[in-house]
Amino acid sequence: MHGKCGRNLRGIFQVLPLAGIEEDEMNSDTDNLVQLAHGGGGRLSRELIDKEIVSRFGGGALEGLPDAATLPRCDGEIVFSTDSFVVQPLFFPGGNIGDLAVHGTVNDISVCGATPRWLSMGLIIEEGLAVSKLGKILDSVQVAADDCGVSIVTGDTKVVARGECDGLYINTAGIGIKMPGFELGPHRITRGDHVLVSGTIAEHGLAVLASRKSIEIENGPLSDTGPVHRLVAACSDIAKDIHAMRDPTRGGLSAVLNELVEGTNTGIMLDETQIPLSQGGKAVVELLGLDPLHVASEGRMALMCSPDVSDDILARWRDMPEGVSACRIGEVTDEAERVVMNTLIGGHRLVDIPRGELLPRIC
Amino acid sequence: MHGKCGRNLRGIFQVLPLAGIEEDEMNSDTDNLVQLAHGGGGRLSRELIDKEIVSRFGGGALEGLPDAATLPRCDGEIVFSTDSFVVQPLFFPGGNIGDLAVHGTVNDISVCGATPRWLSMGLIIEEGLAVSKLGKILDSVQVAADDCGVSIVTGDTKVVARGECDGLYINTAGIGIKMPGFELGPHRITRGDHVLVSGTIAEHGLAVLASRKSIEIENGPLSDTGPVHRLVAACSDIAKDIHAMRDPTRGGLSAVLNELVEGTNTGIMLDETQIPLSQGGKAVVELLGLDPLHVASEGRMALMCSPDVSDDILARWRDMPEGVSACRIGEVTDEAERVVMNTLIGGHRLVDIPRGELLPRIC
Repeated sequence: MHGKCGRNLRGIFQVLPLAGIEEDEMNSDTDNLVQLAHGGGGRLSRELIDKEIVSRFGGGALEGLPDAATLPRCDGEIVFSTDSFVVQPLFFPGGNIGDLAVHGTVNDISVCGATPRWLSMGLIIEEGLAVSKLGKILDSVQVAADDCGVSIVTGDTKVVARGECDGLYINTAGIGIKMPGFELGPHRITRGDHVLVSGTIAEHGLAVLASRKSIEIENGPLSDTGPVHRLVAACSDIAKDIHAMRDPTRGGLSAVLNELVEGTNTGIMLDETQIPLSQGGKAVVELLGLDPLHVASEGRMALMCSPDVSDDILARWRDMPEGVSACRIGEVTDEAERVVMNTLIGGHRLVDIPRGELLPRIC
Repeated sequence: MHGKCGRNLRGIFQVLPLAGIEEDEMNSDTDNLVQLAHGGGGRLSRELIDKEIVSRFGGGALEGLPDAATLPRCDGEIVFSTDSFVVQPLFFPGGNIGDLAVHGTVNDISVCGATPRWLSMGLIIEEGLAVSKLGKILDSVQVAADDCGVSIVTGDTKVVARGECDGLYINTAGIGIKMPGFELGPHRITRGDHVLVSGTIAEHGLAVLASRKSIEIENGPLSDTGPVHRLVAACSDIAKDIHAMRDPTRGGLSAVLNELVEGTNTGIMLDETQIPLSQGGKAVVELLGLDPLHVASEGRMALMCSPDVSDDILARWRDMPEGVSACRIGEVTDEAERVVMNTLIGGHRLVDIPRGELLPRIC
């Protein structure tokens, strides 16, 4: 494609310091590295976009690459969300930045009780990223988008010089259509509500952590990156009995549960024996002395509902691959704004929001 | 706010190399620098978001910081666009990355014949950016959003370590509602159509270039960063006679005009005497020997219309501050896919798309 320019620059690439690019982000074939000129809006930009973007996501609203996508008229309220992904490394056990960027925005829309439909994708690429790496990541975007029933309809590609980003950052924004019946939020949480989680927690954060720290554990944690839209859709006929939904990403389950009861006159009592952890996750948590309630998941959701429907929801979720380890983990109390856990050894402990963060760039 | 943690880290900040942060991006008050922990999803994240984001954009859909914004039901087709902004320096003559990020997405939506309504904002902040700098940029976001009639309804904040981005990157995505009557696109361009531009071109790119290269010119170019939504709305009653609209950003006027006639059986003949350039712009162009058709504007639009309405459109535009230097710059020909210019010295030259780019990180 841009072989000629690549050859001209080969000498330069070989002597430049490769700041910010991991060894494994490089390609032995220097002809196929993203160049600064790929971000300039000229012919090279167009070639990269045609070859890597249009070939995968073309057709539909992306056809002809207009400045913006024109979408069909839609019934219902619109739900709109965005997330930037700066995860490091780009590839981690169980996924990569591409599927993560799709799942993150799909999940934010889903837990608002909406069906995700359209995504935008903004790429900030570091000069020198192998085009083949970018291609693998975009393949994952495509597979994840198909699985979630969303289309990538508009996008943007910027290239920054070596050392000015770390391989690749992806922003996705998404539009969904609100499902009828859901009315969610802290104001609906009621004493006695059951608190459910759709599967083993903390695995995304633990997988990234283990890969960053080169912790090698047999059957170690795999990222749980995945969509929750089917879990939400499975409950749409009993939407009125569901009072709150959130996905526990940065800050973990502790952050979302504390945020949900903040400013309300309710609290939460968790049961430590019921918090689902995978074997690999448990191994890393014990090795490093971490609190799994502080660690991010990227394919799980927490839900608060009337006790009448919690067994029904758990049964529906456990019938689906993404909900097979779903659990009831606690109950809403009248201790205002307090999240407390009954511990394994029979005591109580306060579940606080982490102050800072476990590890930068977890998503 | 986060003074305590800042104090603890002060010593570390002072000995670390400040890779990637320009001198003027730093603050003498080391207590008020963005820290990695501000991106962790915990209490510090929440404090930064409450103080810097909610205080400016709170209320409406952002209230309570849900995972996604729920927007009112809307009539008409939705137009959806995104852009990432990596401009360097963050502050340039005539604007900064904040207003640029609003105008960029507002303009992409506007030239599709839609009224921009809602924006998302994703921030990727380099550790060590002064909170006061971030605040000034967010002030500009707020002023620009108000001027454009759009609300920031959802967002995301990530912090990366020093050297892993260059100060601040902003992604905006936006939703607009299609105005009735506009049917735009290359298929509507007809031989004899007039080609208009809403004002002096290339000033954004030239202003950033001059400030990056420290070229000091009296009355030098100021970025034209600004919105075009009023220019579009002013023509909505004659929408059917407007055949194409684009905003000439990266790649300049040459890129958008070439893209518009690509794959059609029409071409464009430009008249060099009519291309509007500011005095400051002309000075930089002549000093550096640049082709202004290759240089980005960030507050201009090009439009192709039936010759019957071009004088009317120019009169309407020239009545508005943002359209005061609007000009008719050419005409559509039947020379398929060729953009040609009648030059000042009486010859013809082909107006080609630039291959690479003039300067990285112009927007």
